[in-house]
Amino acid sequence: MNYCSDCGGRLVNSIPAGDDRLRQVCPACGRVHYQNPKLVVGCIPLWKERASGEERILICKRAIEPRLGYWTLPAGYLENGETAAQGAARETLEETGAEVVDLAPYRMYDIVHVHQIYFIFRARLEAASFHPTKESAEVKLIAESQIPWDEIAFPVIQKTLEDYFRDRPTGRFPFAVGEITERLK
Amino acid sequence: MNYCSDCGGRLVNSIPAGDDRLRQVCPACGRVHYQNPKLVVGCIPLWKERASGEERILICKRAIEPRLGYWTLPAGYLENGETAAQGAARETLEETGAEVVDLAPYRMYDIVHVHQIYFIFRARLEAASFHPTKESAEVKLIAESQIPWDEIAFPVIQKTLEDYFRDRPTGRFPFAVGEITERLK
Repeated sequence: MNYCSDCGGRLVNSIPAGDDRLRQVCPACGRVHYQNPKLVVGCIPLWKERASGEERILICKRAIEPRLGYWTLPAGYLENGETAAQGAARETLEETGAEVVDLAPYRMYDIVHVHQIYFIFRARLEAASFHPTKESAEVKLIAESQIPWDEIAFPVIQKTLEDYFRDRPTGRFPFAVGEITERLK
Repeated sequence: MNYCSDCGGRLVNSIPAGDDRLRQVCPACGRVHYQNPKLVVGCIPLWKERASGEERILICKRAIEPRLGYWTLPAGYLENGETAAQGAARETLEETGAEVVDLAPYRMYDIVHVHQIYFIFRARLEAASFHPTKESAEVKLIAESQIPWDEIAFPVIQKTLEDYFRDRPTGRFPFAVGEITERLK
């Protein structure tokens, strides 16, 4: 940030009265421009095969940077005007064409070095209906044995999948908070 | 927002290519200025009386607007450079002078109309050590029977306290997500 979004004045770095850290402040109008982490919301979309009763996970191959060509779970920035669960369902629809229901909170991951908090739900697909999108070159339902572990886009997605497959045999999915300190190679 | 924080140009409202909603866009440099909800992190600071073994909750009376003079739990905006739990502990220290440990995720509340997400932990006071601060005119440890229900600052704090006292007799505190649609009177 260089300019004040309110008055257009040049910003300076200073510690406002009563504060304890450097902020971007506008000397012209006095406005303090705080920077805060952003919430990324997403889900693990789950589908039970009608014939076998086996569970499948919907994953998508990124058609955009960063990490174009790598596999991920649907997730994106929470928007104003929606709840976290609504945002996760919207991102899933945008990235995979699939509709999810029964969103249950599963993991929150702090990723301090990129100023992001990931909040991931478990969710159920109402139908095995999905398709490639502008953001996803390929979308598919796969079994645990088919997860492309060497081609997962982000450490937070890898961790979430590992957590999920560790919990699944127990049939219990308690919510937990974790931290991602690993950086992309 | 009126001006571009990158180049100082006048912003206009338009739907960027590939997007589906109005954003504030800079025609001069092309930057899109997204607005996203902010995360507020806080906790329920708990203390066990040495003599009786009874539990007390640390609450604080707001010394600042909004809701000056009303009671609340320590909470505030998550900052860049910290995890949600670190932010909740920092806010508790800033607002009450108390140090909390063993933070356990308890509630997330979407407050869509103010573009906020509250994330509240349960936490343990290591000592019954606290004091008034710039933000809190009064800080005290109280029993459930002493909660000033008619003087709670925000609906999200009232809901969190109600949730907590409903769970406490069971000894189980499962994480849950809720939504606050009530506005301040």
